Amino acid sequence: MNTNFKHIKVIGFDADDTLWVNETYFRDAEATFCKLLSQFETPNKIDQELFKMEIKNLPAYGYGVKGFILSMVEMALELSNNTVSNQTISKILEIGKEMINKEVELLDGVEEVLQGLSKKYKLIVATKGDLLDQERKLEKSGLLDYFHHIEVLSDKKEANYSKLLNHLDIKPSAFLMIGNSLKSDILPLININANAIHIPFHTTWQHEEVQVNEDEKRHITLKSLLQLPELLN
Amino acid sequence: MNTNFKHIKVIGFDADDTLWVNETYFRDAEATFCKLLSQFETPNKIDQELFKMEIKNLPAYGYGVKGFILSMVEMALELSNNTVSNQTISKILEIGKEMINKEVELLDGVEEVLQGLSKKYKLIVATKGDLLDQERKLEKSGLLDYFHHIEVLSDKKEANYSKLLNHLDIKPSAFLMIGNSLKSDILPLININANAIHIPFHTTWQHEEVQVNEDEKRHITLKSLLQLPELLN
Repeated sequence: MNTNFKHIKVIGFDADDTLWVNETYFRDAEATFCKLLSQFETPNKIDQELFKMEIKNLPAYGYGVKGFILSMVEMALELSNNTVSNQTISKILEIGKEMINKEVELLDGVEEVLQGLSKKYKLIVATKGDLLDQERKLEKSGLLDYFHHIEVLSDKKEANYSKLLNHLDIKPSAFLMIGNSLKSDILPLININANAIHIPFHTTWQHEEVQVNEDEKRHITLKSLLQLPELLN
Repeated sequence: MNTNFKHIKVIGFDADDTLWVNETYFRDAEATFCKLLSQFETPNKIDQELFKMEIKNLPAYGYGVKGFILSMVEMALELSNNTVSNQTISKILEIGKEMINKEVELLDGVEEVLQGLSKKYKLIVATKGDLLDQERKLEKSGLLDYFHHIEVLSDKKEANYSKLLNHLDIKPSAFLMIGNSLKSDILPLININANAIHIPFHTTWQHEEVQVNEDEKRHITLKSLLQLPELLN
């Protein structure tokens, strides 16, 4: 396990569920969606089918709220055998707009930690969400000034991160990624010999879940971002 | 008018309607949409209302196909007074998926020009489309190797370009933007003292249209990308 952080020049922060609450809002939206369609199926079945639909549509729509809304609309048509009311479709569109316009709720210690780190490192946001969405959240969050820029990745696999490092003109050893998703923010970085620190959020989207055996673990896990500055010192 | 290109280090290319056909597909989609809703309104009225809806939703959805589909769904509900059939909603979702999966049709001379320029300049794609969409098109286009990376801007205003130059660590005089939209690809660059060359496409989205008086013109217009290498020499 690499615990030598003296070569770090750039720190990339995942945005959703690392800097601010996000997954919780998707869970809330899914619950509302299940209620809207409760005449057609059980919540459990609707949840499962919606997840399958999102995965099916991922190559076309990618990540982010807009693809999620489109998948909910498609799911409503399918689950109801084309008998869902226009009012329900309209409510689904509203769920989406509400998600997009949600206030930003920062996670514990985020501002204080970024303020400190931004004096020593170049900080960037590295997210696979929607650029407009993420810029909007960053603006609302008041954190804009701490970041050099936002990198939106269409996916967070090794190749995407290699491209990012190439674009930043730095070696893997000079990059540290901080995020809540083992699958997207941590493992791909470790695999390309960059650095990554895992800070789990209490809820993880099913698609992001992976298991790592304790004895094969090659990354550091922190309980809170507040522990990060001490680790880097 | 600045015609001195000797300081140029990075050339940014707009993607849609500069490298490949795009607006044509939106026009086709709008025509299909008008037919789908022909029982409710005239094509002309539907077109006007859809445009208004897109502009209304722009702050929430931004640019790109997904926001366009969502606006079409909302428009169908509204125009029909919530009487549109589920089959029609389903067809609207299909129009969107077809747009996303469309083959890429390169504009005249694109490959040959990029091949030549990539030997002398750092080339990037600077687009306000959807990142996933644009990456997919770039991959399909076979042009991937000529570009250093893709920059997705949430909008193409002066502030967005200033951020981009900051991010590229270059002065405005070292950047040249090539694009088909006067409003998005040319005027903001001229205003921040960077360079821009306009190559119009035969169709422009209403939202992108601006008028510039001939005597106030501060940019160069070319008929085809094929004329660019000679101009830079």
